Amino acid sequence: MFLSAPSVERLVDAFRRLPGVGKRSAERMAIHLLSTQGGDALELSDALRSAKERIGLCSICNLLTESDPCPICADDRRDARLVCVVEQPMAAIAIERGGSYRGRYHVLHGVLNPLEGIGPTELKLDRFFHRIKEEGVEEVILATNTTAEGEATALYLARQLGDLGAKVTRIAHGVPMGGGLEYADEATLAHAIQGRTQL
Amino acid sequence: MFLSAPSVERLVDAFRRLPGVGKRSAERMAIHLLSTQGGDALELSDALRSAKERIGLCSICNLLTESDPCPICADDRRDARLVCVVEQPMAAIAIERGGSYRGRYHVLHGVLNPLEGIGPTELKLDRFFHRIKEEGVEEVILATNTTAEGEATALYLARQLGDLGAKVTRIAHGVPMGGGLEYADEATLAHAIQGRTQL
Repeated sequence: MFLSAPSVERLVDAFRRLPGVGKRSAERMAIHLLSTQGGDALELSDALRSAKERIGLCSICNLLTESDPCPICADDRRDARLVCVVEQPMAAIAIERGGSYRGRYHVLHGVLNPLEGIGPTELKLDRFFHRIKEEGVEEVILATNTTAEGEATALYLARQLGDLGAKVTRIAHGVPMGGGLEYADEATLAHAIQGRTQL
Repeated sequence: MFLSAPSVERLVDAFRRLPGVGKRSAERMAIHLLSTQGGDALELSDALRSAKERIGLCSICNLLTESDPCPICADDRRDARLVCVVEQPMAAIAIERGGSYRGRYHVLHGVLNPLEGIGPTELKLDRFFHRIKEEGVEEVILATNTTAEGEATALYLARQLGDLGAKVTRIAHGVPMGGGLEYADEATLAHAIQGRTQL
């Protein structure tokens, strides 16, 4: 039947590799694009190719960018003495949406994970430490995720950066704004109480 | 910032046209594909182009297919006297998954919708009626959706097919299997009671 045609199976497999897309969603996407008489499938195909060709990593901060250095590193109004370290570009984009951060970023594109063979070399940490030293960065905000690997990576970076003399901070963990306390999980509540601030 | 780069905006727009994909999901997909060092973006691009080139409509039943006629129309073991009419290929695929239907299909690729200028000509109903007559089809199962347009289309087809002498049936509407009655909506329950069968 249609879904077992090799070209369709290949397309469904490619869609399944997207975040948040399961088998059924991938099939629906494939069927939708192949049913549509318009050029949606070819437009998506061309848009992918074109974006992949144009988008690279900023040579300073590793953010995805069309121009090098990226608009954030090239912006003189941003505070170059402040660097926020994130695991993935998505995290930097989320912080930018907040609109209040005026420093720069450094994207690791991963976390330390010895079991999967990802160490300081794979994350190009030498280049990162060199950058921090070279640019005279005064504060490094560690915004890796709150997973075991993210915390371990933050701890490792904190130790190494301490030797360089930079101030190292970790983003605050606590109850999300606008949410009732009853919806927060136990670990978040424990963090929120431990990290309480005086009014 | 990265998401406002023209090539990324174009990619996000293309993803948003997929069923069930909102702005945030589209952004996440674009960022994921552009962050990934592997060839996922180019693989999806090529898979789309390749599938679009290979997949066409079956000249008999309008199903999406790599070969013409499609595997279902070409299968001698399927009952050619029984044709199930659906709006979209997805519906035929869902019925095939059920595994119990042994007839053939006819995909309308739409429904009658005078407000949007979709009439019998746009759905190529002449060709459909010709097919039913030509192939000596004995029963046509109308499996259009239970929307206003789907019901109106079923009614229109039933009248026209009646003139051709074919038996016309509509799929049963009722409470889904495995679901508690308390989860069914009122219209479904009313249909289920009205369409009750004797044991």
